[in-house]
Amino acid sequence: MEKKMQICLGFKFAGIHCGLKKAEDALDLALILSQTPATAAATFTTNRFPAAPVIYGRRQLAAGESLRAVLINSGNANACTGSQGEIDVLSVAEFLGAALNIKAAEVFISSTGVIGEPLPVTKILKGIEKLVDGVKIPGDPVITFERAVRAIMTTDRFPKMVACQLETSQGRVTINGFAKGAGMIHPNMATMLAYLLTDAKIEKNTWQALLSRVVEHSFNRISVDGDMSTNDTVLALANGASGSFLTTAADLELLENALLQMTQELAYMMVKDGEGATKVVKVMVTGAPSPTAAEKICRAVANSSLVKTAFFGQDANWGRIIAAVGYAGVDLRPELVNIDFDQVRVVSGGVRDRDYREEMGAAVLRLPEFSVKIDLQSGEDEFLLLTSDLTHDYISINADYRS
Amino acid sequence: MEKKMQICLGFKFAGIHCGLKKAEDALDLALILSQTPATAAATFTTNRFPAAPVIYGRRQLAAGESLRAVLINSGNANACTGSQGEIDVLSVAEFLGAALNIKAAEVFISSTGVIGEPLPVTKILKGIEKLVDGVKIPGDPVITFERAVRAIMTTDRFPKMVACQLETSQGRVTINGFAKGAGMIHPNMATMLAYLLTDAKIEKNTWQALLSRVVEHSFNRISVDGDMSTNDTVLALANGASGSFLTTAADLELLENALLQMTQELAYMMVKDGEGATKVVKVMVTGAPSPTAAEKICRAVANSSLVKTAFFGQDANWGRIIAAVGYAGVDLRPELVNIDFDQVRVVSGGVRDRDYREEMGAAVLRLPEFSVKIDLQSGEDEFLLLTSDLTHDYISINADYRS
Repeated sequence: MEKKMQICLGFKFAGIHCGLKKAEDALDLALILSQTPATAAATFTTNRFPAAPVIYGRRQLAAGESLRAVLINSGNANACTGSQGEIDVLSVAEFLGAALNIKAAEVFISSTGVIGEPLPVTKILKGIEKLVDGVKIPGDPVITFERAVRAIMTTDRFPKMVACQLETSQGRVTINGFAKGAGMIHPNMATMLAYLLTDAKIEKNTWQALLSRVVEHSFNRISVDGDMSTNDTVLALANGASGSFLTTAADLELLENALLQMTQELAYMMVKDGEGATKVVKVMVTGAPSPTAAEKICRAVANSSLVKTAFFGQDANWGRIIAAVGYAGVDLRPELVNIDFDQVRVVSGGVRDRDYREEMGAAVLRLPEFSVKIDLQSGEDEFLLLTSDLTHDYISINADYRS
Repeated sequence: MEKKMQICLGFKFAGIHCGLKKAEDALDLALILSQTPATAAATFTTNRFPAAPVIYGRRQLAAGESLRAVLINSGNANACTGSQGEIDVLSVAEFLGAALNIKAAEVFISSTGVIGEPLPVTKILKGIEKLVDGVKIPGDPVITFERAVRAIMTTDRFPKMVACQLETSQGRVTINGFAKGAGMIHPNMATMLAYLLTDAKIEKNTWQALLSRVVEHSFNRISVDGDMSTNDTVLALANGASGSFLTTAADLELLENALLQMTQELAYMMVKDGEGATKVVKVMVTGAPSPTAAEKICRAVANSSLVKTAFFGQDANWGRIIAAVGYAGVDLRPELVNIDFDQVRVVSGGVRDRDYREEMGAAVLRLPEFSVKIDLQSGEDEFLLLTSDLTHDYISINADYRS
């Protein structure tokens, strides 16, 4: 990662205020424009109530069309809005397509905000006119990129963006990524959205497979309150503007490693910026008899309100962790289970370690970041989740959100 | 239910302070003594780390022995204490058995409190001497019963007890019940404990089957934060002291209905007294394609931190409920789903009902108790859970519990 943020070739950005957020200076509409048709890959929420833009986006990706533009609004999720919501997505895509002189099918749409309210289409269409005027004026790409990143924020406390340049066998390529919140962190705002852009050229199926692998080990490895949104979307665009067509195993590995590092960095930022969060905690389960067993236990611990409240209270209350391990629905041998807080052995063989003293655990839990490792000693499989604590501010933010 | 609390024949009670709780006047050790061997039935936690008294109690019930005495301590769960914990249970049972001149195998033990700390056996043995002296002195049964109920409380704000008298074909029988907390409400205190006593005589297998059915529709229908304790126990004793041996279908149905009503009342009290709770909410799923589907959705909604925080904020945020329905892992048709808050139709066919206005939902959520009904319109099965809201006080109680 370089200090100065490098922006991909052949992409333009804009971020404006169109009136979806109440504050007058709050950016709420973002545009990504690719000068050339970009190869697209995406992953979406598995929620059974997918939002209208998710339904539309899935169809688009299935049709295999290249993309030219991405329009993202914050302030309204366009979820649970029925057939009207789907009509609204189409209207917006057609309007933007006409304004940019591209096909509506080349326009990808994302929304984030309150569920169940009709999309304020008129405000968005007026915003699109401003956006399109905006991208015609040459601007500092770093500044316009940052404005787009800020326009997709909801309760996020800071913008989340990453950049990377790779020297491949085909020349230098640049990758940008940005994201907001997480379905499980900002779920009423209803969305974890992430966009990955590169000026490399990549074959479509390779791109999708690579994205799916990377998402599985980054965004799918974070959890805050276990609530999954109706709008989660990760979109990856490769527009080839650098002229570098990545096809060799070595180049693709370079790309995948860079994307993995970048998405893990964005995922980490989401947890760090979790609503009300004061801690980032890495929960690791090792020695599990199967990947499923490892994941079940990891999720039970990382999602337990009691465990997360103990983290907030800086209380090394390992009994709550043990209780969550025990109700995860996995057949295990309690007498083999070890638990470490960072380097401190807390539980050995299912009971408190004989050398453990309360102050040793408390010292770890006072840190802003630490790990909890649960070793089942019953196999070779493991799972890892980043999670945050459950705090008074989480309650305040979510109890008072719409009032 | 009668106004004056009637106490079963042939049971004696005591509650004392033995030093497990810090406050000098806090009762922390309870004794139930049956003058005759009582037929016992029980249900226990399914946590994979069962506490030592649960392991011991399971063996006792499996052996089929009648019970004479129940000793319950608060302040220490004797969970995750390994073989020493099991030795401690045996020591306590043997000591109490000797003091009462009964077999150790006739003594049932329950514990509730912090996980992982060794049981302070010396304090308990000294307490047993006091208890046994106490039950020799004739006392007001109502007062001694209430002292026993108070001695098992942990973070409970009020004691939880019920009484009932039935006129059966065999004469009058009395039933008493009392309980503390809930595994999902007071999970660090680590226990939902409930005791059901009757002076009727009932055949052992009938008694266990009846208890299991009743628990399934009372204690297993409440949920606060989804955390399941290592110590949960429901014990039912029938000592026959009334001389009424219940064998006919009519008498058994009378008994089962009474027990169901009493356990539902105790379960309701647990939710009402949930840590920090300000609301009692009945979540109902109807029209489900299978009982499992109904239960999954019901639990997803009732355990969602976001839904429960919205209840606390009195925010009729139905989008969070829809999101939880959608991630419950059930295949459903979003366009058929209806949601009502009490009598107010909020969602029709997966979108906001056309006649619904925000203030209609807000008026319901300001009530201290209300129901949320989710109708999938896809079958005949249903499920119901009582739950509470997630509040600042919950965070305070559980972040600062041990400090």
